[in-house]
Amino acid sequence: MLHFADRVSEAVQRKGTPLCVGLDPRWESLPEEVRRRHGGSSLESVADAYEEFCNRVIDIVAGLVAVVKPQSAFFEACGPAGLTALQHVLRRARERGLITLLDGKRNDIASTATAYADAALAGVTFEERRFPVWEADALTVNPYLGRDAVEPFLQSARRCAGGVFVLVRTSNPGAGQFQDLVTTRPGSAEPGRPLFLHVAEAVRAWARENLGVCGLGDVGAVVGATYPEELALLRKELPEVLFLIPGFGAQGGKADDVTAGFRPDGLGALVNSSRAILFPGDPADPAWEHRVEKATRDVIAALPRVGQHP
Amino acid sequence: MLHFADRVSEAVQRKGTPLCVGLDPRWESLPEEVRRRHGGSSLESVADAYEEFCNRVIDIVAGLVAVVKPQSAFFEACGPAGLTALQHVLRRARERGLITLLDGKRNDIASTATAYADAALAGVTFEERRFPVWEADALTVNPYLGRDAVEPFLQSARRCAGGVFVLVRTSNPGAGQFQDLVTTRPGSAEPGRPLFLHVAEAVRAWARENLGVCGLGDVGAVVGATYPEELALLRKELPEVLFLIPGFGAQGGKADDVTAGFRPDGLGALVNSSRAILFPGDPADPAWEHRVEKATRDVIAALPRVGQHP
Repeated sequence: MLHFADRVSEAVQRKGTPLCVGLDPRWESLPEEVRRRHGGSSLESVADAYEEFCNRVIDIVAGLVAVVKPQSAFFEACGPAGLTALQHVLRRARERGLITLLDGKRNDIASTATAYADAALAGVTFEERRFPVWEADALTVNPYLGRDAVEPFLQSARRCAGGVFVLVRTSNPGAGQFQDLVTTRPGSAEPGRPLFLHVAEAVRAWARENLGVCGLGDVGAVVGATYPEELALLRKELPEVLFLIPGFGAQGGKADDVTAGFRPDGLGALVNSSRAILFPGDPADPAWEHRVEKATRDVIAALPRVGQHP
Repeated sequence: MLHFADRVSEAVQRKGTPLCVGLDPRWESLPEEVRRRHGGSSLESVADAYEEFCNRVIDIVAGLVAVVKPQSAFFEACGPAGLTALQHVLRRARERGLITLLDGKRNDIASTATAYADAALAGVTFEERRFPVWEADALTVNPYLGRDAVEPFLQSARRCAGGVFVLVRTSNPGAGQFQDLVTTRPGSAEPGRPLFLHVAEAVRAWARENLGVCGLGDVGAVVGATYPEELALLRKELPEVLFLIPGFGAQGGKADDVTAGFRPDGLGALVNSSRAILFPGDPADPAWEHRVEKATRDVIAALPRVGQHP
């Protein structure tokens, strides 16, 4: 199979947009039509509503964007039934030709990290037989535990031409509490740099281990749209790293804020939007699918275009 | 309901040991008797084997220890069926009077963090009705995203007298890559300290927000047994913080290494052991339950005793 970054770059060029649609189903925001049909009287009924809603959104956006990003937390909040819904949503996205990023922010050490990674990416192995579990194309990963805790995720991704996005600079207001601490290596005389740049350096090294033809690696970085200066700095320091940029729209990131995240050819970054696309208006509006389609087109129009293949 | 730390302290004193049994089912290590009965020909059959194995371990250790810690990754690796098994295992542990720590190392921002937290702890709410999901007493959490990303976990824990354990110093060999970076606040002239001490300071502040009668807060710290000097330093700096100490046994942490993690009265720390208890000998031995019981007693004997209630 093609290298992960080449698949992303090709699909983004074909669709002409770096938009990634975040699939964050929230019961209280779902269209009333969907809520009414399923009710909210059990975790199973909420999971069914999430599955129907996400599948219909996938059908709407599949012709417009290259990538979707289901948020694991909302599915997990419905228990086992929610995870079944997540499996179905990921399958629907694949069948519609979309690249899938599972947003799980997983992290652990050694064989435990391998269990998370294989579940999300390459599939788990029992009795020498491989079983697919979530079958996502990429997974988000938290770096706090260090290199040996991130590497099992890279290994699993590389067994299936998948990808990993490492949290570098998150989009939340308090992201800087630890990520901005001024930091040096023990015993080093070098000037201090914010912690997120040390993490970024590690990501650059991981990305360089396995570059695609497009010049990008299979290890990307999550960098919030809400910190445009950091985004510009990181684009300069990490030329081979694909960025996943959350925080556009509802969290306050604007189109101007994300332009610095791209390479000159318009590749190198995916911009995620969730709420602005999923919940664009009155939940009582029965024509909600038209609104989702219009919202998707509006966000695409606001973002930088990516040149079509020549 | 009693404060989380008081429940832990009372139960640890009653059992006389700070041992926490980690429930990390690994297919290739399960007793052959259990593997044979379930086979490994589907994710569902592996999940059933995990459930049976963990439930039988719970029945063995329930009279000996106060706390168990199921590892979410191994259950997730079996897909939705694995998460159903996790629910059943957590329920069995509660029914046997055990305190349950769900090891998920979750992290995200705002309402997404709330979804993870409510699923693990207080229960999720749809249409003004609360639904329990995993119903654990506490959850492990990764701090990289900063205060506003950790607080939803604290809020959920406090709604159900639960707890949160924040990763401070993990037990893996590469833990220091980021956790040991010498770090100062931007613009500060103070001398640098390792990153994990900055995280520890934040944990101390969170713990002090809600102390139990025993003097410990409901926000604990994960500190690996494999770093005894850091453990001693943290015990001194965080007198009100309950420690969860992984890495004892199979990962190399020894009994002498963990003694510094306790308060003078023997409280203040839980020491986790997984593999040494779950998989103590030949998987073909049909008397594996006796070996698990003996291994549990051996680990208890190696650890500091906690004085019984007067």
